[in-house]
Amino acid sequence: MAIEHTVVFRLIHPAGSSQETEFLDSARRTLTAIPGVTDFVIKQQCSPKSDLAWQFSMRFADQSAYDAYNAHPAHVAFVEQRWQTEVAAFQEYDFVPR
Amino acid sequence: MAIEHTVVFRLIHPAGSSQETEFLDSARRTLTAIPGVTDFVIKQQCSPKSDLAWQFSMRFADQSAYDAYNAHPAHVAFVEQRWQTEVAAFQEYDFVPR
Repeated sequence: MAIEHTVVFRLIHPAGSSQETEFLDSARRTLTAIPGVTDFVIKQQCSPKSDLAWQFSMRFADQSAYDAYNAHPAHVAFVEQRWQTEVAAFQEYDFVPR
Repeated sequence: MAIEHTVVFRLIHPAGSSQETEFLDSARRTLTAIPGVTDFVIKQQCSPKSDLAWQFSMRFADQSAYDAYNAHPAHVAFVEQRWQTEVAAFQEYDFVPR
């Protein structure tokens, strides 16, 4: 069954900064190059009821494609080198049809 | 600009219970009947990194359609009579394209 993987997050960089733009563009390049990632979308979170500012969402055909993404060296490196140093707060959610 | 309104939540009802089914079906009937609500979808949240179990998502053409939904008597009644008594925890997020 297809799985929609999402993460809502806030960066340490100021809104509108070049560091913010670079992070988002680099994440798109890195993550969309990993096999199994489809429908990658970056959205802005605009509800004042959350202080998180961005969302990445992507879709995997099944759990094994999702597992392969998580274990892929490019994903592991992205998490270690960018996510853990530039993301101030985040929440993951994964969705499947009801 | 189109706005995607989402809420991720957990019910007070046991997973798989008839109360859960009734809540979800009733929410769909009530909320999709409110003018301006489009693309209403119920999804199951399956990441173990969150203890929330369901998501409602819907789309509004613009902020004024979203405001009208929030103020609509059917929405206000749903929040007061069902949401506040049957939802144990929730988080709202709204999204616009980057």
